[in-house]
Amino acid sequence: MEKKYEKAWLSYRRSRNAQNTGHFGSVFTNGTGVVAETAVSELQGAAKELLGCHMERGSWEEASVRLILEPNCGLGEEGYEIRESAGRLTVASEGERGLLYGVFACIRLLQGEKPLEGLSVRKIPSAPLRMLNHWDNMDGSIERGYSGDSFFFREDKVLVDDRTRAYARLASSVGINAVVINNVNVKGSATRLIEDDYSRELEAMSEIFAGYGIALYLSINFAAPMELGGHESADPCDPQVQQWWKEKAADLYGRLPGFGGFLVKADSEGRPGPFTYGRTHAEGANMLADAVASYGGRIIWRCFVYNCQQDWRDKKTDRAKSGYDNFMPLDGKFRDNVILQIKNGPMDFQVREPVSPLFGGLEHTNSMLEVQIAQEYTGQQRHVCYLLPMFKQVLEFKTCCREDHDRVRDIVTGRTFGQTNCGIVAVANTGDDENWTGHDLAAANLFGFGRLSFDMDLSVEEIAEEWIACTFGNDPEIMEKISKILMMSWPTYEKYTSPLGIGWMVNPGYHYGPNVDGYEYDRWGTYHRADHKGIGVDRSPTGTGYSEQYRRQNADMYGKRENCPEELLLFFHHIPYDYRLSIGKTLIQHIYDTHFEGASEAKEMLDIWNSLESKVPETVFERVQKRMEHQASHAEEWRDQINTYFYRKSMIPDEQGRKIY
Amino acid sequence: MEKKYEKAWLSYRRSRNAQNTGHFGSVFTNGTGVVAETAVSELQGAAKELLGCHMERGSWEEASVRLILEPNCGLGEEGYEIRESAGRLTVASEGERGLLYGVFACIRLLQGEKPLEGLSVRKIPSAPLRMLNHWDNMDGSIERGYSGDSFFFREDKVLVDDRTRAYARLASSVGINAVVINNVNVKGSATRLIEDDYSRELEAMSEIFAGYGIALYLSINFAAPMELGGHESADPCDPQVQQWWKEKAADLYGRLPGFGGFLVKADSEGRPGPFTYGRTHAEGANMLADAVASYGGRIIWRCFVYNCQQDWRDKKTDRAKSGYDNFMPLDGKFRDNVILQIKNGPMDFQVREPVSPLFGGLEHTNSMLEVQIAQEYTGQQRHVCYLLPMFKQVLEFKTCCREDHDRVRDIVTGRTFGQTNCGIVAVANTGDDENWTGHDLAAANLFGFGRLSFDMDLSVEEIAEEWIACTFGNDPEIMEKISKILMMSWPTYEKYTSPLGIGWMVNPGYHYGPNVDGYEYDRWGTYHRADHKGIGVDRSPTGTGYSEQYRRQNADMYGKRENCPEELLLFFHHIPYDYRLSIGKTLIQHIYDTHFEGASEAKEMLDIWNSLESKVPETVFERVQKRMEHQASHAEEWRDQINTYFYRKSMIPDEQGRKIY
Repeated sequence: MEKKYEKAWLSYRRSRNAQNTGHFGSVFTNGTGVVAETAVSELQGAAKELLGCHMERGSWEEASVRLILEPNCGLGEEGYEIRESAGRLTVASEGERGLLYGVFACIRLLQGEKPLEGLSVRKIPSAPLRMLNHWDNMDGSIERGYSGDSFFFREDKVLVDDRTRAYARLASSVGINAVVINNVNVKGSATRLIEDDYSRELEAMSEIFAGYGIALYLSINFAAPMELGGHESADPCDPQVQQWWKEKAADLYGRLPGFGGFLVKADSEGRPGPFTYGRTHAEGANMLADAVASYGGRIIWRCFVYNCQQDWRDKKTDRAKSGYDNFMPLDGKFRDNVILQIKNGPMDFQVREPVSPLFGGLEHTNSMLEVQIAQEYTGQQRHVCYLLPMFKQVLEFKTCCREDHDRVRDIVTGRTFGQTNCGIVAVANTGDDENWTGHDLAAANLFGFGRLSFDMDLSVEEIAEEWIACTFGNDPEIMEKISKILMMSWPTYEKYTSPLGIGWMVNPGYHYGPNVDGYEYDRWGTYHRADHKGIGVDRSPTGTGYSEQYRRQNADMYGKRENCPEELLLFFHHIPYDYRLSIGKTLIQHIYDTHFEGASEAKEMLDIWNSLESKVPETVFERVQKRMEHQASHAEEWRDQINTYFYRKSMIPDEQGRKIY
Repeated sequence: MEKKYEKAWLSYRRSRNAQNTGHFGSVFTNGTGVVAETAVSELQGAAKELLGCHMERGSWEEASVRLILEPNCGLGEEGYEIRESAGRLTVASEGERGLLYGVFACIRLLQGEKPLEGLSVRKIPSAPLRMLNHWDNMDGSIERGYSGDSFFFREDKVLVDDRTRAYARLASSVGINAVVINNVNVKGSATRLIEDDYSRELEAMSEIFAGYGIALYLSINFAAPMELGGHESADPCDPQVQQWWKEKAADLYGRLPGFGGFLVKADSEGRPGPFTYGRTHAEGANMLADAVASYGGRIIWRCFVYNCQQDWRDKKTDRAKSGYDNFMPLDGKFRDNVILQIKNGPMDFQVREPVSPLFGGLEHTNSMLEVQIAQEYTGQQRHVCYLLPMFKQVLEFKTCCREDHDRVRDIVTGRTFGQTNCGIVAVANTGDDENWTGHDLAAANLFGFGRLSFDMDLSVEEIAEEWIACTFGNDPEIMEKISKILMMSWPTYEKYTSPLGIGWMVNPGYHYGPNVDGYEYDRWGTYHRADHKGIGVDRSPTGTGYSEQYRRQNADMYGKRENCPEELLLFFHHIPYDYRLSIGKTLIQHIYDTHFEGASEAKEMLDIWNSLESKVPETVFERVQKRMEHQASHAEEWRDQINTYFYRKSMIPDEQGRKIY
């Protein structure tokens, strides 16, 4: 029944040279907790497999590696310093988690065959909270999961086994310090996860997680006091409801080591919430926050709230505006242990969206950036789509909320407003497939997300190279070719799918494959408004006014089509097909060109991969090859459907006379 | 668990006048079989409920009603004559089924308060086989079922209870003489229906059916010899396979009274068939035919065979051609107890299709017309759509296969080619809803299909009036208003859905609600090819050539756009939006106009129904009202999506300046 699993980027292959073996004779640590123990044993395991060194414990004086807790060294509990001098390696931190992260950093250096001599590295994690959200259901399915079933749940049972530890190692090795194991849509038996029913398994799981410095969080059902507690309401202002949650929190924090808190999706897509009782999201979140505050607990509150019963004929209502409209009036009203979890864009994980205006809007509210590595709309782990370049762009976006330190990364790392309850979270892409992520190259997103959350100064190329070295070794040809595939992949995917930020041209429901009008006459607020003359949604001040939700400078940029960055042109403006883009070609010609290019690049990526046949393990080669062959042909389907759709609407021929069906 | 059910058109209400009571004092029959017994007890029951007469059995001399078997009277086993003279009513036939049909005819007269004096009616059923196909699955679901779950199956069990008899009464009362109880897609436990597993229940069921003159048929899985018999193939030319089916037939005919034979969907939409073994459909069907021949059994072989993996870019392949292409070469190759079951049109039960060219094409093959009353594409029993006018048009279609007697009705009744194994079949619209058909008005299709199959000379207005009188009584206002709704309903549905025969503008999969491009880029061969300039599929000789599958005269009619009947214009031709139709308006204006009209008529039908509030039973009134309110608003959704789609493509404004979104 239980499926095998591989080690992903922690698959240690023996080093081809012996430059670093001298450093790994023995290890000392002054840490006495479980995480320090984890650090030592991870180091020992890696030294053995990578270098053939059997590391003993040694004294402070003798040990060749020292993992040292140094109070007040300025690194914090999670930061670390690695110093090498005279054949001795020191990893220092104020906390054991810092030591563990330092050890994993050393291991990455060894995997990359980097020399340790004279090394001096100092890292403090960028984001305080570095989180994964798993949308795993208790029946074992995963909402928007594309790599098998859940390894957390099966048939209403919580699974705790070797794979739980293997997962915790992977997550911790890249710096993840918080994990939500269950789907934000909490229904059925998942509502009972906070009951005694699953206490034994959750205790065992949180213990494993705690050993790797990971806090376990649970998604909760806002209506739990009714469904479990027999109360007649879940009104956050009802003292009985408040009391019920207090008791629930006391119970959970009493028995789950390092328990983090709750994630809540309320009043969204049919989930219950405070609106039912005429209360605000702040009242809802604060009630829960009060219940967990004395344990240092946090409430993560999702901002994905919109009207999902829209009429396509209504051109005034704009789903993009709903997050800001709902949450801006509440700025400053949330407790200090509430964090708003805000999707990167105002819609829903499309291949290209502007940054949510809540970033830079909210000034007195903790916020956290939510991205999705599950590729729901970006190829579902069947297409290669290395998403780190997108995440990086989002983080570097200048919100203009002040003169400097105004980027999204400044906000979510606490630099802008001095917050400490903030960070970044990804909807995870794992499942019980042997390689964890279905597509082997999708693991670069999991690895990369963790690495970027820990160190936002890393370039996306550096992250790709680290992952390739750890996963496939650092053969220059492998490095160059897989890097090339990864770096091409997001722009290529964007080229052959929906153009210039318009999004949503997918099959409704499962969100895979082209369907230009798939959502056009539906109730989800996701329209492209294409007619014979042009396409795009007018979100300027004379349209829906969404652009005005940004700070002045950005509002001016987005509000006028001549200032608007062209990759987002159709998100903000309705543009005639014959409009000339800055590169001199018309919009329609740009659509044709990018689609021909995208499909051709998908084929090119396949060719590059095929040239690696002798270089990567056969199983991996074939798994990836099969998916990339599908991608190449599916990209042609995208190309042809999109091009035909626009040709049939506009009847403007391709200037190059290529085949449009 | 078991749901209640109503009596539909067999709900007898007490007559308001006593004109006919004198005739129903006593009854005599010289029939000695079960069907004659049924006829007597049906007559007794109706006389009691309708007239308050308690009918005794009487002698030939004394009885006021005589049900008389008269050998060689020229009526056949199923025909009947009703004669009234001097207060005495005689029903005569050569067979007991004829007596039963005669009795039901008398009952309809009583329900309609018609006088019996001097009556002289002689009827011989038009179609030898008058069949219903139920697409019921063993788990209790019904494929394309819109009126609850199955009353034949539940949780892999066969149900035989009071409702079985109630169903048989309904079917028999309108002349149905053959019923297939299980879905043509035979999978899982349905494959085992021909095994001993269900013998007790099927015996009981076929006994009930036989009492009403109905032959039970079963859909079979062509791969049964492998799945059940452990054979390595299902090759129809393999003697072991042939032997397996022979034994199976011997077993079934041995234990099921009046068992009819098998219905087979082979090599279609993923179902197994003879193609797997390089055999023809004739070889497959004949093998089965040989197995059942000695029992007088029949094999009904469906002609719904096409490539369901088509590429939308391919404009040469035409799904419409596949039935003819597959079966014409086999004309004359089938055994005499094989009947080809041919859908009315070449596609799949759209609101408007041309008649399949297999009618009039095949000359030496038994054929049966298949229609669908389940309304899969015609409103799914949520919209009113009285389909008899469509069926009538199909039956009256002149195939031009000879000088006269060349209509579809001539072919399927055996008049053209002298066949006796032929007839008409409907995919049924029943389920375990209390009123049998979900929408109360949908019962008119079930009633009407049976009546038309028995008497193709009936007009669709007469059938509607018969059904209304039996169901609601013959109050003139009820009669006029419900007739009006029924007679409007098909043209109205056609107006607000896809225009001029093009079809398919529905949501993929569940086939409900508008989605103009829903199937346009899919693999099902169902395209409209709409671009900025026009719409329609060129099936002329210079297009796919489908029109050439018809006999010369029809080929010429369909092949040229100026000769083509306009209701099928877009089925046969790609037409510019500014093309002027014979009524003087452009195609695009016709699309706009019909959609505004259709939505407005849907509202008008609702208004008519609402005016009947005091006239029909409250439960029925409310059930129908709810559905008609939905229909009226759904028709607006259709109107707006279709009009917007074409406006956005053509940018040609509505001449009347009405609102197009």
